[in-house]
Amino acid sequence: MSHGVVPKQVAEGTRLGLAPVARRIVALGVSANAVTLLGGALTCIGAALLAMNMPLAALVALAVGTLADTLDGQVAKASGGGTAFGAFLDSTIDRLSDAALFIGTVLLAATTGQAALLWWGLVALTSSFLVSYVRAKGESMGVGASVGPAPREARIVIFLLGLAAWALFDLQLAFTAAVLIVALLSSVTLLVRVVHVGRQLSTKGR
Amino acid sequence: MSHGVVPKQVAEGTRLGLAPVARRIVALGVSANAVTLLGGALTCIGAALLAMNMPLAALVALAVGTLADTLDGQVAKASGGGTAFGAFLDSTIDRLSDAALFIGTVLLAATTGQAALLWWGLVALTSSFLVSYVRAKGESMGVGASVGPAPREARIVIFLLGLAAWALFDLQLAFTAAVLIVALLSSVTLLVRVVHVGRQLSTKGR
Repeated sequence: MSHGVVPKQVAEGTRLGLAPVARRIVALGVSANAVTLLGGALTCIGAALLAMNMPLAALVALAVGTLADTLDGQVAKASGGGTAFGAFLDSTIDRLSDAALFIGTVLLAATTGQAALLWWGLVALTSSFLVSYVRAKGESMGVGASVGPAPREARIVIFLLGLAAWALFDLQLAFTAAVLIVALLSSVTLLVRVVHVGRQLSTKGR
Repeated sequence: MSHGVVPKQVAEGTRLGLAPVARRIVALGVSANAVTLLGGALTCIGAALLAMNMPLAALVALAVGTLADTLDGQVAKASGGGTAFGAFLDSTIDRLSDAALFIGTVLLAATTGQAALLWWGLVALTSSFLVSYVRAKGESMGVGASVGPAPREARIVIFLLGLAAWALFDLQLAFTAAVLIVALLSSVTLLVRVVHVGRQLSTKGR
């Protein structure tokens, strides 16, 4: 799968570094689906902390939640291969986690009166959802759509970097900028995917 | 397809009533994809009017947009059957229209300080998206998921009824109640679909 703006080496490195952790989790008898659900729950908690204007606590919960989210696939592999149900659960929880991030952002913007953050949060929420929908819809019609500069990994890394700049260095503008960048990159990815799927379907004919 | 809380007779009646209109549109040389895009554009305009606290103008734009949205499939049929690209475009514009409705609602709630409407608008936005995503994802994995009490037609009818009660009889609480009902019904539909797809995938095994 393409990692867009995240360098391939970084993605691979993270995966290699997490492999021993995944084996430890399997040894403890924890299932991949449990790790998926834990990641989703931590992300929702992080989003709630963000909505309550607590950036540092939100950053910690979201960073751990994202790690759990990266681990579930490896735990599935290490325990003998994932199930179709596991893959479906993971995809659905991923969408819910994506939504939670930007719902937290929108609630924060609404309660603190940040109009730009409210707008970009809503655009990011919608476009990141549509990016995933267009891929699933394309695949249900028999054509692939894993293209564009902002797949999920890229969106989350940019969001967390912006949140870290706010939480650790008090650069709240960096967080707004990160949400803006995710909104723009997701919108571009959406357009690229719609055109990509549209072209394949057109050549397939009726 | 199931129409959930919308009686089948009403759905069928609307379809029959629109058939002559669809034939007229085809005679004018307008394509189904143009009708799809027009419907999406009208829905976005309606959502913007809603965000600007103009319920009557929003109701008119959304009602016409929804009619166009119902017509595109019939125009496609009347002009000799739809294309795969047309079906993909229609599905993607439908998701964008769904999002527009609740983005308009959330912006209205944020600017007028209605906390309950803000919350339920975000839940409705997320759950109606997930309902469509779970179906597309299930279908991409080879299992169907057209189940649950709130498919798209039901969501839009409830939303427009609430908006009409506000626009025509000044019952703003009815609009908030409609958004709440859509949020709850969509959440139930989401759970029903996740369980439905999950069960089918589990019996399919690895």
